[in-house]
Parts: sequence; structure tokens; C-alpha cells
Amino acid sequence: MSTLYLGADTSTVAPYVLFSGDPFRVEVLQKYLDNPQHIAFKREFNTYTGSYKGVPITVTSTGIGAPSAAIAMEEMYEAGMKVAVRMGTVMALQDDMLGHFIIPIAAMRRESTSKTYVEESYPAVADIELVNLMNQTVTDFGKRYLNGINCTMDGFYSKMHDSKFSKECGIDMSETFEELKKLHVTGIDMESACMLTLGRLMGVKTCIVTMATVLENLKEALAGQDRVDAEDLLCRVVLEGLYRYHTQKA
Amino acid sequence: MSTLYLGADTSTVAPYVLFSGDPFRVEVLQKYLDNPQHIAFKREFNTYTGSYKGVPITVTSTGIGAPSAAIAMEEMYEAGMKVAVRMGTVMALQDDMLGHFIIPIAAMRRESTSKTYVEESYPAVADIELVNLMNQTVTDFGKRYLNGINCTMDGFYSKMHDSKFSKECGIDMSETFEELKKLHVTGIDMESACMLTLGRLMGVKTCIVTMATVLENLKEALAGQDRVDAEDLLCRVVLEGLYRYHTQKA
Amino acid sequence: MSTLYLGADTSTVAPYVLFSGDPFRVEVLQKYLDNPQHIAFKREFNTYTGSYKGVPITVTSTGIGAPSAAIAMEEMYEAGMKVAVRMGTVMALQDDMLGHFIIPIAAMRRESTSKTYVEESYPAVADIELVNLMNQTVTDFGKRYLNGINCTMDGFYSKMHDSKFSKECGIDMSETFEELKKLHVTGIDMESACMLTLGRLMGVKTCIVTMATVLENLKEALAGQDRVDAEDLLCRVVLEGLYRYHTQKA
Amino acid sequence: MSTLYLGADTSTVAPYVLFSGDPFRVEVLQKYLDNPQHIAFKREFNTYTGSYKGVPITVTSTGIGAPSAAIAMEEMYEAGMKVAVRMGTVMALQDDMLGHFIIPIAAMRRESTSKTYVEESYPAVADIELVNLMNQTVTDFGKRYLNGINCTMDGFYSKMHDSKFSKECGIDMSETFEELKKLHVTGIDMESACMLTLGRLMGVKTCIVTMATVLENLKEALAGQDRVDAEDLLCRVVLEGLYRYHTQKA
Amino acid sequence: MSTLYLGADTSTVAPYVLFSGDPFRVEVLQKYLDNPQHIAFKREFNTYTGSYKGVPITVTSTGIGAPSAAIAMEEMYEAGMKVAVRMGTVMALQDDMLGHFIIPIAAMRRESTSKTYVEESYPAVADIELVNLMNQTVTDFGKRYLNGINCTMDGFYSKMHDSKFSKECGIDMSETFEELKKLHVTGIDMESACMLTLGRLMGVKTCIVTMATVLENLKEALAGQDRVDAEDLLCRVVLEGLYRYHTQKA
Amino acid sequence: MSTLYLGADTSTVAPYVLFSGDPFRVEVLQKYLDNPQHIAFKREFNTYTGSYKGVPITVTSTGIGAPSAAIAMEEMYEAGMKVAVRMGTVMALQDDMLGHFIIPIAAMRRESTSKTYVEESYPAVADIELVNLMNQTVTDFGKRYLNGINCTMDGFYSKMHDSKFSKECGIDMSETFEELKKLHVTGIDMESACMLTLGRLMGVKTCIVTMATVLENLKEALAGQDRVDAEDLLCRVVLEGLYRYHTQKA
Repeated sequence: MSTLYLGADTSTVAPYVLFSGDPFRVEVLQKYLDNPQHIAFKREFNTYTGSYKGVPITVTSTGIGAPSAAIAMEEMYEAGMKVAVRMGTVMALQDDMLGHFIIPIAAMRRESTSKTYVEESYPAVADIELVNLMNQTVTDFGKRYLNGINCTMDGFYSKMHDSKFSKECGIDMSETFEELKKLHVTGIDMESACMLTLGRLMGVKTCIVTMATVLENLKEALAGQDRVDAEDLLCRVVLEGLYRYHTQKA
Repeated sequence: MSTLYLGADTSTVAPYVLFSGDPFRVEVLQKYLDNPQHIAFKREFNTYTGSYKGVPITVTSTGIGAPSAAIAMEEMYEAGMKVAVRMGTVMALQDDMLGHFIIPIAAMRRESTSKTYVEESYPAVADIELVNLMNQTVTDFGKRYLNGINCTMDGFYSKMHDSKFSKECGIDMSETFEELKKLHVTGIDMESACMLTLGRLMGVKTCIVTMATVLENLKEALAGQDRVDAEDLLCRVVLEGLYRYHTQKA
Repeated sequence: MSTLYLGADTSTVAPYVLFSGDPFRVEVLQKYLDNPQHIAFKREFNTYTGSYKGVPITVTSTGIGAPSAAIAMEEMYEAGMKVAVRMGTVMALQDDMLGHFIIPIAAMRRESTSKTYVEESYPAVADIELVNLMNQTVTDFGKRYLNGINCTMDGFYSKMHDSKFSKECGIDMSETFEELKKLHVTGIDMESACMLTLGRLMGVKTCIVTMATVLENLKEALAGQDRVDAEDLLCRVVLEGLYRYHTQKA
Repeated sequence: MSTLYLGADTSTVAPYVLFSGDPFRVEVLQKYLDNPQHIAFKREFNTYTGSYKGVPITVTSTGIGAPSAAIAMEEMYEAGMKVAVRMGTVMALQDDMLGHFIIPIAAMRRESTSKTYVEESYPAVADIELVNLMNQTVTDFGKRYLNGINCTMDGFYSKMHDSKFSKECGIDMSETFEELKKLHVTGIDMESACMLTLGRLMGVKTCIVTMATVLENLKEALAGQDRVDAEDLLCRVVLEGLYRYHTQKA
Repeated sequence: MSTLYLGADTSTVAPYVLFSGDPFRVEVLQKYLDNPQHIAFKREFNTYTGSYKGVPITVTSTGIGAPSAAIAMEEMYEAGMKVAVRMGTVMALQDDMLGHFIIPIAAMRRESTSKTYVEESYPAVADIELVNLMNQTVTDFGKRYLNGINCTMDGFYSKMHDSKFSKECGIDMSETFEELKKLHVTGIDMESACMLTLGRLMGVKTCIVTMATVLENLKEALAGQDRVDAEDLLCRVVLEGLYRYHTQKA
Repeated sequence: MSTLYLGADTSTVAPYVLFSGDPFRVEVLQKYLDNPQHIAFKREFNTYTGSYKGVPITVTSTGIGAPSAAIAMEEMYEAGMKVAVRMGTVMALQDDMLGHFIIPIAAMRRESTSKTYVEESYPAVADIELVNLMNQTVTDFGKRYLNGINCTMDGFYSKMHDSKFSKECGIDMSETFEELKKLHVTGIDMESACMLTLGRLMGVKTCIVTMATVLENLKEALAGQDRVDAEDLLCRVVLEGLYRYHTQKA
């Protein structure tokens, strides 16, 4: 029986699952796979399964926020997932990382969905073997990586980004950023801590691989072909990393 | 400039906004509008603007969970929204409500995104004028309504629905349901409390209109043409309710 | 057997109960009833039962604060109460409401007694039918009403009003007021949220009806005959509202 | 100017203030004073000032619950109070204390009003000198005393005593009692912790003196003349204790 | 069998136990005992048992912080302790107390170890009989005492004292001190609240006796022979106080 | 100037610091160093500095519990520490790990001292480079390692180990263990989470290396020469790991 929201099942999902936040980004990702089969596009979940160098890989999406990311993790687990990699672009808090990789070793659990699974004191920490392989792959592709700390939050326009309403309320978002930089946080998102926590609890090897495409305060950003190339590189690194993981474990 | 995620702006969004959870459901909703214009389908947000009996109305989606629902509320507010109605189907906790309407007057704030806006003690309460008009419209369409309390939560597979993982953890979901029924909760969802809270804070008139299409424990459900008819009725009631609100306020 | 504190029982209490904070105010209220019978004046609880246009009504008092208000609600429930209306005067946070009615649709649960019954996320929301009837009655009496949000707190001299001690501690009460106005709070009290929460849990239809007799910062207040008239109007509106509720339900 | 609720001021209130919970009990207490003057009976606050052996003493009431007790403490402080003694009868958790005194050295702060003044970690502890003098006075009157721990709570019918509603909810109050006995709690009330905390913060010497007139589960209670005598003894001990305190400090 | 960490047992530990924070300070304390026997020096726990005027007394150490202090209390309780006295030097927040005694009647529970035993609302309060005897002994030795409130915290360099790291973080420790002085706190430490709480729960009579050897901001401190004399006096007062307690109880 | 408690300074402390819980264990550790110099033994802190294969290394102790461990971290940081390794023996929750290494990648922050530095959502995660080098060293020494999750707690006899008092209270410690095993926790201690959190905040590379010398429920334990050999191996692995780290970074 296929799962409630994603329409997946053990016959259509691979042990290696790649998660994007954006369902439409999955359309790009599936092109890197050999023989991609479309599983379903329901709600914010768009799913394909194919292979890379012979390793079966599913690509799917989480939508925005930890509640839907937890649903994606749960249904992929139901469908047989053993290894989970969330990938995406990220704003770097360090200037020299533009065009390079941020692969967080752990994340601050400011989101609350993971707290419906386990108390806040539990660490949202990535799988060290996956991180090591991704680090090595980045290096082999001639790029640098940073193994920092992400901060995952529930409120995009209340904590992370100005809005018409936040301005009316007189909220200064830069306070969040200043505070997080003091804590050596290297990236901000809305899903990572939840996925790392659930992965750890489920026994699913999980990590996050991000490409820094923009600097803080938008002072510099990759654009045009540079950005296309950076996103292409991100895909190739992650797929190659999964291939190496598969090969090493076999 | 169009908004970051939904790609909306004040020139393309109406003061009356209708929210569905599912972006693909928006495709059905837009057919009830006169002259529907597609604004954008980005991430989990699919948006059309048209009119009903001459009243300009936008239909869009929130995706699953309060974090993305808050983004939808924020960006629609940025684009000029004055009135917000979330609509959908719901599981009824009272047997005699099958095929009838549950229009919650307020909601339990067990989700956490709204807490990034205001402390938990603040009530997630619907706009009484909107609720009254929706109640009246339901009655005029020959159906019954219940103005109960919804409970909004972040964890679908940790608190609301069994999963492979929840079973491995030995979690009994029925405990949540038993507890909530003692509290006279009439429906369970993942967005309402957040939307009601934000609407109240923003000064946007907000309410929730749901159609009971399934009973607790799935002991009875509308199916086939009955369900199609029920969902059709839900659309017509909500649009008519908005029309009356507009007319009364003018 | 009569109840522990209020000395009431099912033979002496009507299904409709009107609550004042001040036990001595009950002496005024009972004069509006036909054939008022004194039940008891024990502790801060003064109780009469009579009738209004043939509808049996009990008037009693809660004393100050949610702990004693909860006792009054519990013992009236023990004695058969079906409908509860708290009434009183209130300081308006909007200038144009002087002499008009504030009938809150819900309240912030900053008091803690209700939390000994149910978690903070549960909404303290009034019964919509009662509110609608009170609104209509106010209109019919030629006055305006506002359905806002009350904020109920436990600490009068720590959070709501200056005292010798608060000044020694350097506490600035205006911060509370500024914060609450941003949240669109229209009134402040010490009992409403607890009574609305308990009423909802007990299945007792509950609402709050208040008359704005003073503006914020005491810049204007009803005095002399104006105040007498305003309080008289408050009594008549509430009694008439209960009469209509009774008639409509019958 | 007289205070807002109690109608007291520095010219009418003595430095020594005796608090009863019940305003009607104050009528009995004032008879022990020489030349008692009635100050006011407003809301749940009934106040007299007189003297005992030449020491000026005010007797007043708190009503039920910490919110009104805090108001009484605040306004008496405004009116010049230096020493505060709460007195009353109590249910003993130890059988051999019937007819004897429980003078708590400190109290559990399960009420929430004091938390609007200072964080929960702050101890609600009595003034040791007052406690010592009350202890000595009890001994000199031929009775025994126990210096235990009280537990102060906000919810009478949710945590301390069965009600129609608590039974409908299936709440077993005996669990609270079993838990508290394990913690060596000797008495339960609704005001003590708040008054001890505020007294400590204000620099007002504060203690609680109670007479055990009933045993747990009502298995034995003082009745008739025994109870009258016990309450009489309580009054005389407290007044004599205050006289000694005054004499010793002079 | 001897206890896990302290290596004590009922045959080697006296009912009266004196606790120092510093294991090396125990070497000084044991010299005040007649016939001191060394029990063990393991981890931060150094223990001797001897007698004073014929009363059997054990001296031991807690190490720094509530976790190890709780272990010391637990193992001494296992070994038969009936009375516990923590002693040490302290920084006075009142200038005129230099060289005098601060014997706290209770403590703020800002440490967290005691919360693993009982909720935060429970008071950390000393045994009144022990405090009275220590007070009297101090007076008889010609010194003054203060029965104030201690504040016990877990974070020495995060809350109580500057460090290289706290300065890098821009933390101003004086804020803690200003706040605590407003709350009439007379001393700051890392063990007292935990020991008082556990003693109360265990039924072990517990108190804290401290000598003020330094004033706030180090503006004045006892040095040289004055300090030696002060610490000598502290030992003699505590031992004499225990002797009196023993004699009075016998 | 030497630090307050440990008596260390930048001239006497090496960039590489090895922490033992037990100050007397430091006496064993220092024998592995070339030319060890004793710095100080104050309170529970015993410190030596020497070298291993030419790499300058300090060995010191934390005492029991996070409060004293934080002091040790702070003062070593003041004295120039760049890399911190806590080492010790541990009870394994997996049978096949006896005599092998548990090198936690992160820890549950159930202790509270670290919360005085940063909110609970922050991950207590080890430095990945240090962990990788320790993993590799263990492998090269012919042993297995496990990179799991530790749980750090404040209450030894309230949460981790039976005591006379815990038994009187009827506490069942096995519940803690069962719960933690479900969370895939591999070890329990009282300092790790605090040290990892502070190390991360300070920019000090930190990890934990432990040797499993006993199985859960004591069903099997290393004893006699096996235990001596295991502890010897632990020392040699950690020192070799630090040497490799130094060499690789140089």
C-alpha cells in the first residue's frame, strides 16, 4: 500500500533518499539519475526513483518546515529508506565560503516538530560516516567545506526574514543573526534539525549538504551561469558521495 | 515586487483569500471563480485570483504545517489580504456530523510556529462576524454546523496518525484522541491555530470552514459522488459566505 | 447538601447565573430580579436567586482572582448552572468606547488557575450564541459593542497597577499596557480567562459582558449620574440578553 | 488617601497585621482587641484596628486565593505594615496534631501569583524570629507545635478537593495528598506561599500560624465547644505572640 | 559495604556530619576533633570521623557543585547521617558583616540537581532548631549573625565570576549581583540549596553556617591572622553548636 | 596570574588538555608523559604538564559533575587550551563492546550547567576531526569503536544509580535506562554534554574517549589485569590520537 501523503512504497523507493525542500527542484534532480521513474507529485511531495552509477536512489521533497519534513522522513522510512541526505543552497555567514560547501555536523533544535518525538536536550547530529564521505568528495571536486552548526527554526517571517508585518511590529531580525553568529552557527533553515533528530532516532543515516550561494546581507551572490554551475556541482557531489558510501559499505 | 515564496503582489491578490492545504486542490477551487488568473505555483503555494458574484477572491495553498501556513499568511498580508478563510475536509469526532460543517470558533495552539509570534496564553480565536455569516450560509444551504474547538499540532506521525516508526516506538495514538475528546475538541489539523493567531494579530478577519467527510476510526466516510457533492458544497458555502460578508460590509 | 463555600444547591440555584466580582455589588443586582431570595453570603460569595421576565436567574460573586472565581464556577456547576455570564465595569483601551460595551470573544490565559485544569494552549473562548445575543441586545439598547480580547492576570500590583512596592522595585506598569495594546487586547481583568476556560470544559455556556466606564490613564471617566446610568444599563442589557437566550432556546 | 480595595491608610493601620482568609471571621477576631475601630468592609476585605496589651494591631482578611492575598499584602504594606501573621484552621496530615499548632517554616510555591513577583526558585520562608516566638507561646499555652512545610495551590477543586466536575473528569485527588506526604508537607492552603514570598521581598516579617482542627480524610475533627475553644486558643496565642515580639523588639 | 564514591559506611560515619566544599580544608577541620580517624580520600571526598566533647562527628567534603554535593549527602545518609551542617567562608553583600556569620534560613534553588529530586516550587529551607542553636552559639562567642537567603547556582563563570570567556562574550556579572541584592539575597554559592532540599526530603536536619571573610567587589577582606582567626572561630562555633544540639536532644 | 581554582596559567598549561573525572587518576596519567611537571592539586583539580612524542600535553581533572567540569574548561581556556579530550571508563549498553571504545559524537544535555551558557536546543557535539583521528587510532590499535550518543545528567542517585534514599522513595532507575536505550544512547555520565557544549562555544576542539569496562547491570566486567590493560590502552590511544592531531595540523 502506498503511503498516505507521498504515495510511495517499498517497491518504488530506494534505500538512498535525497531530499530537496522545493518539489519543483526535484524535476532538476531527477535528470541526474539513470532511468528515473516518477512515483508521485502529491501535496508538496514530488518523488522520483532512479539510479546513479548503479546505486538506486530516490529523490523527493519535504516542502517548507519541519512538520512536512517529518512526514517525508516517516513515509520514506515506511518505504524502506536507510540513508537520508537533505541538500540545498544556503546563505553563508562566512564570506570566504561563497561557492563552497557547508555540511553541518549538527543543528540547533529551535523548531518544535522534533520535540514531539524526543526532548530538546537530545542532539540533532549528522551521521559521521556520511559527513566524512561528503567532506572527502567535496575536496576531491576541488572545493572547500565547513562542518558547522545549522540553526533550524519554525518562524520564517518572525525570526529569519523581514516582512510587512514584522516591520509593523518593530522586530529587528538582525538580532537573531548577531546572536547566532556568536554561537558559531553557520547556516539557518527550517528542516535540518528535525530531519537529523528523526534520522538518529529511526536509525537512518542522515546528513545535510548545502552549497553557499549567497553571503549574509546579500552582499555577494552567485548569479547566472555561476549559480547554475554551483547547483550542478552540489548535485554531482551529493550523488557521488552516496555512491562512495554505498561502495564502501558493500 | 512579488513576494518571495508565493510570487504574489498587491496587484494580483484580492482582499478575500481562500486557503487550501493542498496546492493541487487549488486547481479545483479556481474553477468556481469567474475569470480566474493563475498567479504562480511555487513550492507548495499555488495561487489564482478571480471573482465570485463580482467579489474579487484569491485562492491559494498553505502546504502542510504551520511554518508554511505562516509564510502564506504573511505574504498574502503583504499583498493586501483583509479576510482569510481556511477550508478543507475534516474527520468528525461526532457521528451525526457526517456531511455537515464544522466551523471552529477557536483552536488549541499545540503547534509552535504561532509561539514565535505571541505567547501561548493568547487565544487562537476566529472572527465572530465571519463565523456568523458562514453559520448562516450553511443553514441556508440546508446543512448543520458545529462551532467547536480544533486542535492544531506539529507532529502528524508522532501525535495524530500511526506510522511504521510510531508502532516500533510503541506509541498509542488513541490516547491523544481520548484526551482531546474530553476537552470537547471537534477537529484536528496542522494549520488552524497558527492562522487564527496570525490573523488576529495582523487584523485580518480569519475563520476556518470544514466539511466532515469521515468519522473517527474511519467507521463511516463519504465516498464516490457523495464526497464529490460534499466538497462541492463546501466550496459553494464558503464563496457564498464571503459574498455575503462583502455585501454586508459594503 | 449545600456547597462548601457558597452554600448553594440545586434547589436554590437557577440554570442562568450572573457573576459579579464584588459581593456587595450583588446587593444592587438582586434588585433587578423579581422575588429575589437570599441564598447565602459566605466568604466573598454573596448569592441571590430570583427571576427576570419569568426566567429564573441567580446572581452571585466571584471575589477577586481566578482561584475564587473557579470555586464559584465549580459550586454553581454543582448546583445546576447551565449558562454563566460575568459582568462588570472595565477600563477601555479605545477612547470612543466610553459608555459602551466590551464583550470579549476570548481572553489571554495569563492567570494560572485554569492551567490546573487544562494546558495553556487551550483557548479561553466565549460561547458564540451568548455573545451574539448580547451584541444584539446592546445594539437594540442604542449602544455600541466591541468583541475584543481580554487579558486575565494573577498579579494586580505586580502587572496591572502601581503600588508603593512596585515603585520601590522600579517596575513600569505601562510596559504591560503597551505590549497588550500591540496584541489588540481590549480589556484587562483577573477572572475572565479562567471562567471562559472552565465554562468551555464543563459545557456551561459562558460569556463576559463589560461596560467601559473609564479610559486608559484615567483621562476620562463616567461619574455621578452618568456612571449610575451606565451600570444600570449594563444590568438591564445582561438580563435582557439572558431572557432572549432563554426564549430562543425554548 | 485610602487604598484602592481595602480602604486603608497609614493613619488607620497598625504595624502589626493579622490576616484571616474569611472576612466574616474578622468579626470574631476584632473582639479580642481593645477599642477596635472598623476601617472598612469592601469586596472580600474586612478590616479593624485596635490594640492588645497596648500593642496596636490590625485584623483584616485576604479572601480566597493568592491574587487577593497579594492585594491585601500590598495595600497593608502601603498603609505601613511591618509584621504580618496569617492565621487559620488547617487539616493535619499527622494524626497526633489534632488540637495542636502547625506553624510552617516555609511553603511550596505551587500558586502562581508570587511568580509574577519573583522566579519560582526563590524560597517562600517564614521569618524565623516570629516563628520562634509563636513556637514558644504555643508551648507556654500547653500545646504542641510542628514547624513543617505547607503547600499552596491555585486550584481548589482541581487539586485539593473533589467536586462534581472533578469526578466527571475522573480526577483522583488522593494522588495529590499521597505525593505531598512523601515530601513531608504538613498542610495545604491557597495563600501562604504567596504571602511568605511577598513578605520576604517587602522586608515585612511574615509567618503563618494554624490550628489543626481536622485530620486527613475527615477521620476525626474538633467539633462543638472543642472547636470553639481551639479557635479561641489560636487567637490568643497569635495575639500573645505578637505582643511578645513587640516587647522583645522594643 | 562502603559507599561507592566516599568509601564510608555506618560503622565509620557519625550521625553528625560536617561538610566542607574543599577536600583539603577537611585536613584542617579534623584537627578540631578528638581521635580523628581517616576514612577515605577518594575523588573530591575526604572524610574523617572523630568526636567533639564526646559527640561523634564526621567531617567530609562535597567538592564544587550540586551534583557532587548530592552524592555526598546521599552516601552520608546511607552511612547513617542524621544531622548535616555545611560550613565555609562567604562573600558578604552587607558591609557590616565582615568577620561575622551568615546562617541562611533558606536558599534560592537556581541549581538544577535538586530539581531531579523535587519540583522547583519546594522550598530549600534550613532546619529551624539547628539554625537557632547556631545563632545562639554565635552570639555567645561575641559575634553577630544574619539569617538571610542564599542563592545557589550551577554556573560559576557564567553567572558568578568573570572569566576570559565571559568577557569575550560580553557578559556583565554585576547584573546578577544587582538583581540578587534586590531580592535580599545575602550570599551566593553552588551547593546550599541542593543540600537543604535533600536534607528536608531525607529527614536529615540540615543547615549552612558561613563566615563573611570578604565584602562584595573585594573592597575589604580579612587577611593574614584575621582570616586564620575567623576560620578558626567558624570551626569552633559549628562544633559547639552541634554539641549543644546533641545535648539538647539527648 | 594563576587561575582561581586550578592554579594554572598560560606558562604552565599546554594547548592539548586531557581531562579525567578523578583527580587521583591524574597521577596515573601523568606517568605516560615525558618530563611531567606538577602544576597544582587544589580542590578536585589535579594538574600536570609534560609531553608525548614531543607534543606538549596537560592532564587535569574535572571532579564529578558539570559545574566543576565547566570551571576546569574555563580555567584551562584561560590558560591557553586549544584542544580538550575527556577520557574515562564507561558502562556499555551493548554487550559486544566490552574492552572496546565508545567515542560519542554528541550528547544529550540533561545536565543544567551548560544551559547557563546557551539554550538547550544547541547541540553538544564533538569535534569531527578529533573524533575521526581517535576512531582511526583505535582501529590501528586493533580495537573497535562506537560513535554513539552519551546522556549527561546532574543527579547520580536520583537518575542513574540506586541509593538507600532512592529505594525509600520507590524510584526505579531501570526506567531511565530503558528510555535511554530506545533513544540509542550508548553511555551515561555527568560531564560530557557540558564539556562538548562549552568547547564548541569557546572554539576549543573537544571530544570524549571512553573505554567500556563494564556491561549494563554489571553482568560482565573487566577485572584484574584485563582492566589494567584496558585502562592502559585507553591512555595510549588518546595520547597517540592527540599526537596524530598535532602532526596533521602542523
